[in-house]
Amino acid sequence: MTPEPTDARRRHDPTVRGFASDNYAGVHPEVLAALALANGGHQPAYGGDDYTAHLQQVFRAHLGPHADVYPVFNGTGANVVALQALTDRRGAVITADTAHIHTDECGAPERVGGLKLLPVPTPDGKLTPDLIDREAFGWDDEHRATPQVVSLTQSTELGTCYTPDEIRAVCEHAHERGMTVHLDGARIANAAASLDVPLRAFTTDAGVDVLSFGGTKNGMLFGEAVVVLNPDAVSAMLHLRKLSMQLAAKMRFVAVQFEALLAGDLWLRGARHANAMAARLAEGVRTVPGVEIRYLVQANAVFARLPHEAGERLRKRHRFYFWDEAAGEVRWMCSFDTTEADVDGFVAALREEMAR
Amino acid sequence: MTPEPTDARRRHDPTVRGFASDNYAGVHPEVLAALALANGGHQPAYGGDDYTAHLQQVFRAHLGPHADVYPVFNGTGANVVALQALTDRRGAVITADTAHIHTDECGAPERVGGLKLLPVPTPDGKLTPDLIDREAFGWDDEHRATPQVVSLTQSTELGTCYTPDEIRAVCEHAHERGMTVHLDGARIANAAASLDVPLRAFTTDAGVDVLSFGGTKNGMLFGEAVVVLNPDAVSAMLHLRKLSMQLAAKMRFVAVQFEALLAGDLWLRGARHANAMAARLAEGVRTVPGVEIRYLVQANAVFARLPHEAGERLRKRHRFYFWDEAAGEVRWMCSFDTTEADVDGFVAALREEMAR
Amino acid sequence: MTPEPTDARRRHDPTVRGFASDNYAGVHPEVLAALALANGGHQPAYGGDDYTAHLQQVFRAHLGPHADVYPVFNGTGANVVALQALTDRRGAVITADTAHIHTDECGAPERVGGLKLLPVPTPDGKLTPDLIDREAFGWDDEHRATPQVVSLTQSTELGTCYTPDEIRAVCEHAHERGMTVHLDGARIANAAASLDVPLRAFTTDAGVDVLSFGGTKNGMLFGEAVVVLNPDAVSAMLHLRKLSMQLAAKMRFVAVQFEALLAGDLWLRGARHANAMAARLAEGVRTVPGVEIRYLVQANAVFARLPHEAGERLRKRHRFYFWDEAAGEVRWMCSFDTTEADVDGFVAALREEMAR
Amino acid sequence: MTPEPTDARRRHDPTVRGFASDNYAGVHPEVLAALALANGGHQPAYGGDDYTAHLQQVFRAHLGPHADVYPVFNGTGANVVALQALTDRRGAVITADTAHIHTDECGAPERVGGLKLLPVPTPDGKLTPDLIDREAFGWDDEHRATPQVVSLTQSTELGTCYTPDEIRAVCEHAHERGMTVHLDGARIANAAASLDVPLRAFTTDAGVDVLSFGGTKNGMLFGEAVVVLNPDAVSAMLHLRKLSMQLAAKMRFVAVQFEALLAGDLWLRGARHANAMAARLAEGVRTVPGVEIRYLVQANAVFARLPHEAGERLRKRHRFYFWDEAAGEVRWMCSFDTTEADVDGFVAALREEMAR
Repeated sequence: MTPEPTDARRRHDPTVRGFASDNYAGVHPEVLAALALANGGHQPAYGGDDYTAHLQQVFRAHLGPHADVYPVFNGTGANVVALQALTDRRGAVITADTAHIHTDECGAPERVGGLKLLPVPTPDGKLTPDLIDREAFGWDDEHRATPQVVSLTQSTELGTCYTPDEIRAVCEHAHERGMTVHLDGARIANAAASLDVPLRAFTTDAGVDVLSFGGTKNGMLFGEAVVVLNPDAVSAMLHLRKLSMQLAAKMRFVAVQFEALLAGDLWLRGARHANAMAARLAEGVRTVPGVEIRYLVQANAVFARLPHEAGERLRKRHRFYFWDEAAGEVRWMCSFDTTEADVDGFVAALREEMAR
Repeated sequence: MTPEPTDARRRHDPTVRGFASDNYAGVHPEVLAALALANGGHQPAYGGDDYTAHLQQVFRAHLGPHADVYPVFNGTGANVVALQALTDRRGAVITADTAHIHTDECGAPERVGGLKLLPVPTPDGKLTPDLIDREAFGWDDEHRATPQVVSLTQSTELGTCYTPDEIRAVCEHAHERGMTVHLDGARIANAAASLDVPLRAFTTDAGVDVLSFGGTKNGMLFGEAVVVLNPDAVSAMLHLRKLSMQLAAKMRFVAVQFEALLAGDLWLRGARHANAMAARLAEGVRTVPGVEIRYLVQANAVFARLPHEAGERLRKRHRFYFWDEAAGEVRWMCSFDTTEADVDGFVAALREEMAR
Repeated sequence: MTPEPTDARRRHDPTVRGFASDNYAGVHPEVLAALALANGGHQPAYGGDDYTAHLQQVFRAHLGPHADVYPVFNGTGANVVALQALTDRRGAVITADTAHIHTDECGAPERVGGLKLLPVPTPDGKLTPDLIDREAFGWDDEHRATPQVVSLTQSTELGTCYTPDEIRAVCEHAHERGMTVHLDGARIANAAASLDVPLRAFTTDAGVDVLSFGGTKNGMLFGEAVVVLNPDAVSAMLHLRKLSMQLAAKMRFVAVQFEALLAGDLWLRGARHANAMAARLAEGVRTVPGVEIRYLVQANAVFARLPHEAGERLRKRHRFYFWDEAAGEVRWMCSFDTTEADVDGFVAALREEMAR
Repeated sequence: MTPEPTDARRRHDPTVRGFASDNYAGVHPEVLAALALANGGHQPAYGGDDYTAHLQQVFRAHLGPHADVYPVFNGTGANVVALQALTDRRGAVITADTAHIHTDECGAPERVGGLKLLPVPTPDGKLTPDLIDREAFGWDDEHRATPQVVSLTQSTELGTCYTPDEIRAVCEHAHERGMTVHLDGARIANAAASLDVPLRAFTTDAGVDVLSFGGTKNGMLFGEAVVVLNPDAVSAMLHLRKLSMQLAAKMRFVAVQFEALLAGDLWLRGARHANAMAARLAEGVRTVPGVEIRYLVQANAVFARLPHEAGERLRKRHRFYFWDEAAGEVRWMCSFDTTEADVDGFVAALREEMAR
């Protein structure tokens, strides 16, 4: 493909990277290249195309022969479509109080889906059967929103990972009580890379009913997917995606990006690299006096506590976010394109700012 | 850019085109090329990037110095964000009963936005002050949803176009009654090309308050925009986009596509071509006995009536949709990549099937 | 019961009546007396009381052994609970465009229930299979809200009544297409009185799935009921009533009012009287030159056209509403306490004002 | 008034009372008597009547000259109308995690109002500025639902009361941050009686913006009210009440009940009595070995811990609820009609069951 001339201009410096978020990164070149494959000619819109048809096989190779994939635009969309599919009008969702659906979706689950969330405080972003039981009651009580779903996040918002056994225990616990399990896998690739197991080990095989499968943070331009692992748990998926405004017209271009990621091992290479960079970062940070690492570093995130002024100075040199400004907690994210030099330079800068 | 090897495969025949929908077409090569410009390095997510920042200027060059642009994922999303921004919780929207928001969004305005629609039958998809008055009353009546917005579609779902004066008359009528005007411009480029006037002639200058500005049908991979022309008419735009699940993480890639379209005349070249192909198609169809063209052909759509069996046979040869199967009405859409040979071949096929 | 002294004062003239609405009337004295029966001591709240338990039998005597009754507060509440129970999140409701759910509920079906309405114009407020078919399609089309319910009103907003056969035809038509039927019976007693058939003749026996059963306009202080005739058609009724904010704490007082109406023939006496007064009114009006009666007078409403100025003058003497001010159409309602003298005096006043 | 004969029957034993809930009680005889005053003749529906007009004065005498009262059906309805009036579409509500709106309304705030709740754990059901700050941030962050309201409950779900100073501190804290304050006063009379101050001391004068004013638990048949204390904080109240399905047709009968309560001191007599009975109950319970009273007994509720088997046995003799079955916590409520004999008998029964 020879690029056509375009009136658009390059407006940024592509050599600049930071630790603010894995969605500050761009598109993996292999994903970008795949878009051209799907271009040209006419293909039925709204998922009737050949790429979306093939995508079923791609996902089933990873998640088993009963997986059904529904590409959507973004992570909030994937979560809210999935949770609607798993609930009726009285449904409530038990979730960690750090979960994206509770803290970072501006109330979309409530406003778009009419869902009631039952947030539970956790020490590390991970639910357990005991923690779930704090809200898992009252199924026959019309005064209380009915707990119908447990929603997990893997890897969690705090950069930790559930083991397959932990997820299995949650699923069994939920299923015994008539609830289903949703897994928000915005960073599912990082979790698989961290656990070093196939994707299905902690999803299909552990009893998860429906997944939000992340693409954007794994190197796609845009696009996530709702993956139904237990078809008996859901209904009206196609309509729910449409009425939730998550149905892409030219869906072939979402599908082909997922194919680029998942047909080979691109998804895993990117995630392993991001995790490795986070591990390198944590290792470096541990050598800097006065900085305390929070939570286990199991995926591509490092949380740390440091004096607020040092954090402020460091932020003038490299982009990242304060996680809990009052507590002096910061979050540093690595992505598929983070380099060792990026990490080492960042640690050096941290050391300098801490030394002032 | 040398394309990287990817595990994704080409799965379709790029020489095949039809008349089913302008979103069956792919991406304009200039738009695809622009994506590479915006790639590489890290850029703030959720619209904090340099491309989205620049996009304000791009849109203001077309729509005036007060235009504010909010890129979103799709047309339903643009409409529902716009209509929420123009209403409070009691609001109702007067619209043609053929409008996309009423017929093709699976109730998203009602379900996501809690909006009440007041659909009005029209002869040609176009509202007039008189037609609006059938539902424009009861502003002080708590029993009735309050008419707060008139929503127009330009070009309409029936392929017709409002003149700038017609839109101005609607806007004056609405504003005098305390209502605002939304324009669903999923095919706004086709309307501008048809009217041969600048975009602002029938939007900003005619009094429209908020636009849904179409990108997908004009050659983008995905992406539409809510464009606020009257900032006093809206509030909480950023939050409404987010809670409506229309906030793209890597927004730079939406912005750069719009830049590729709108910085030069790519948007207009594509629309003019699509319209010309529709005109050629209509001209050809008129020479075929027994086929009746419905509505004025003013944009890129041709509606026709023909015997149902002939339609069925023709559909086996070329893709298109029945619009009103009971009435024997079909819709034929042209797009930026429709060729003269496509049109002529289609007319020949139509002639054959009608002659059987 | 000797009335206790109270600090509240009588503030109105109980001899004044008008023709504005059947809910301008007060409470039937037998209903008021029944409240005292249910008072005293403690009874479980939220429907666990002995009166609500007994109410099942009361309703089943009228509507058959499978009827389930769920008392609620008001008519909008009854309709929106019923329609939610009959739909899932993608559901749409086909209804006459004059129906209360479309015109007089301030968008509650859309906003509370997330329902999509598909209003159909009718000549007399009554749907037919043919009229239903204008919106009854697209069940597999994810772009369109799914028609799942047909909602009838009996007697209609225009004072007309469906025959049992007409309702049966609608129900068969709907059921064949996989839809259910809701009947808004805010004035169901007036319909039964008009048709001179048992309540079940045009509900249970005609195939209606769920009823909104009116109490307020039939002489209750407040209170309506959702009556489920086809238990297979609904789910989660108790939760839907609660989450729709229609669950009365001291439900015994709703139940005992319905018992007062329905255990004997109070419901029928009141409705017959109201209908007779409307018939007398129509008869009188027909003798007044220049006043045109609109629609069949089959229940307790008379619609008429008269010169606007005459209407304005008459409204200064007796309360009533303009129905369609532009068309000079007025509505005159009779209630259980309307007297012959009220009617005759009103006709005389009308004659005077028309003669000026 | 001589009661009319009615076909309804007395179906319960009016000498039986329990400690399950203050809404197990019936209607105060003075309230019941007031209904007859408002009956007879025609009065405009939906609040246009003379009783509702007068009710403004009644409430203003208690709550100051700017109070506006909007009668509604029930407490959930009052809360959800009030919270909608105080928020726009992005709004979130900070509340104690024991609040009725979070635990006992089956998600109505989320489903009907599209509201996002931000529940905060508290030791005693009472929010403080510090507790509020756990969720009071992010007003400019489109990813987070915007904290716009703090919702207090007075008396709380745990039977405790805020002092006027405590409420004033919360209001100042909220207002400084641009938030408003809602007070759920389902048991506001009990709070005023407990504090021995006028109603306005801890509402209007403390800075509360909008009240849910309880009537049902204070001896009404049904009916609550939204009372707007700060008119600048709300909009579209009439429409919000209607679209939330909380608009009573025959509103005169809600208004006259409130008049019966509030024109004299009936509201206070009933609440003082209920509180005194709770105090007597607590005093008695403290003499029973093995039963631990939880929380301060400041209103009409007593919470206690006792062995589960003893609780089970006691429940066979007197009605009450387990509050937290796992923790062995029970709730005993007193009402306006609880007698000293009821209390003493209950304490004796408790003593017996604990002694087994």
